[in-house]
Amino acid sequence: MPAPKIVTVGTVALDTILTATSKATEVLGGSASYFAVAAAHAAGVGIVAAVGGDFPARHLTALKRRGIGTEGIARREDKTSFRWTGRYSPDFSSRETLDVQLGIFDGYGPAVPEAWKDAPCVFLANGDPEHQISVLLQMRRPKIVVADSMNLWIEHKRPALEAVFRRCDGITLNDEEARQLTGEHNLLKAARRIRRKGPRFVIIKKGEHGCLLDDAAGTTFVPAYPLEEVRDPTGAGDSFAGGLMGVLASENGGDASPGAVRRGVLAGTVWGAFAVESLGPRRLMAADATDFRSRLHALKRMLRFAADPA
Amino acid sequence: MPAPKIVTVGTVALDTILTATSKATEVLGGSASYFAVAAAHAAGVGIVAAVGGDFPARHLTALKRRGIGTEGIARREDKTSFRWTGRYSPDFSSRETLDVQLGIFDGYGPAVPEAWKDAPCVFLANGDPEHQISVLLQMRRPKIVVADSMNLWIEHKRPALEAVFRRCDGITLNDEEARQLTGEHNLLKAARRIRRKGPRFVIIKKGEHGCLLDDAAGTTFVPAYPLEEVRDPTGAGDSFAGGLMGVLASENGGDASPGAVRRGVLAGTVWGAFAVESLGPRRLMAADATDFRSRLHALKRMLRFAADPA
Repeated sequence: MPAPKIVTVGTVALDTILTATSKATEVLGGSASYFAVAAAHAAGVGIVAAVGGDFPARHLTALKRRGIGTEGIARREDKTSFRWTGRYSPDFSSRETLDVQLGIFDGYGPAVPEAWKDAPCVFLANGDPEHQISVLLQMRRPKIVVADSMNLWIEHKRPALEAVFRRCDGITLNDEEARQLTGEHNLLKAARRIRRKGPRFVIIKKGEHGCLLDDAAGTTFVPAYPLEEVRDPTGAGDSFAGGLMGVLASENGGDASPGAVRRGVLAGTVWGAFAVESLGPRRLMAADATDFRSRLHALKRMLRFAADPA
Repeated sequence: MPAPKIVTVGTVALDTILTATSKATEVLGGSASYFAVAAAHAAGVGIVAAVGGDFPARHLTALKRRGIGTEGIARREDKTSFRWTGRYSPDFSSRETLDVQLGIFDGYGPAVPEAWKDAPCVFLANGDPEHQISVLLQMRRPKIVVADSMNLWIEHKRPALEAVFRRCDGITLNDEEARQLTGEHNLLKAARRIRRKGPRFVIIKKGEHGCLLDDAAGTTFVPAYPLEEVRDPTGAGDSFAGGLMGVLASENGGDASPGAVRRGVLAGTVWGAFAVESLGPRRLMAADATDFRSRLHALKRMLRFAADPA
């Protein structure tokens, strides 16, 4: 397999997900998994992460079959895999973590395979900011670095996280995280405050309400792809980021210009929509290039028609 | 003044509004007031409503100065005006009604001035559905009828409200109202269920998240106009409807085609944004044609750039 264009560090996990009507037990989860599945449609991607000796080989096989590099996934035989169990409220507006097993991270330091260190693009998926920094320092001269994070790290490892953000071209966060990070309720102001920390672009994800992008070209709201059924929001933000980075990595050997970022946001919006349509990553993993193109076309047509009604 | 193209029935009120940082006392309020101020920029509009003997003449003068027909506003000298007092949560995500004085509606039946009965467009602003029906029955052959409502009427006067909706070309509701009316959480499904009751188009307003439009041409999400400061959401939905109806009334002598409705949604989005920028209707009332065109241009550019990044 050729060296990937995108290196991502994040989690590869076993998720148990409860919704009002269904339950999925120990399905493939983790920020890096969702990210990579979406990104791989546009550009080669390699995962840096760790799994335990109990991690089912079939999940790694499923990633490899999509051309995803798994040489960076350390198999720690004496540890048990990262497991997350969560329950969503009936309307998916909130979720509760019922259980989380972090054993795999005990004494873990991410190691980027030598052949990946020249990759032009890095995505620091949600995970320990110290792991994010470590990966960043191992990469030689990435052209584009984008990071995501979550409430846990904003609360407990803010200095490390701020150090990550200072080194990034772009940041993706959800609305509550952006508010928590900045202390600013208005999302436009929150985005601008985050940009002042360093990143050229900030994308604030609003779930079913789409996202807000702020960069040198201005502010853009992009609505979510209209869906009649939402079955499980797990991984939607990571899949969004995968669609985004896939575009940034595949254009001009790495391009984070306002145009490329907007094309990335459209692709991310489509991949995020696939992610929420099944319990676990099944629908996301089943989506092919034709499914993607068809939705992207519908999304663009919707936006165009809104801007310039015939 | 020539007969108006749009006749609206709704409330003309005195609002006392409390936010985390400010208070406005007995400012001009009511669904018909906000609606008419926005609509009047595009088409002549006349208000059917009632005020008490204590209603300040300056508020009616302010409406008249904008070319708004006030002959349909009955002055009931022996009653006190409709007053609403409400307090918003610090992030404006919820509001509490602290006081409401309904005395003016005791024994009131709306009367449409004879000269207005041939108006091509009717907007049934939020208010008692029996008043909405009454106005509709007084109009001769309106080409376009659109209605709004709220939780109170959905809960307590559902049969009358359903009768209104069956006679409408379009409905505007906010997200919670649409869910309450249909029992359906997913807004796309809720919109389709409302359309099955009769209306050709349904617009579900989502506040800071914009709106969803569903009609024969498909589903469109339009984001809100990006604002750094929200000072008071009161009247935003009514102002949105004013922008919408202004467009429908001014095109081809009354046009509710998918293109006209989308142009109306853009105009409504801009007027809604003016409404939230001041405590009470001050900013909305101060906005002129230049302000409007400038924001409309920015909104279209944002949507176009999102759909077709350069």
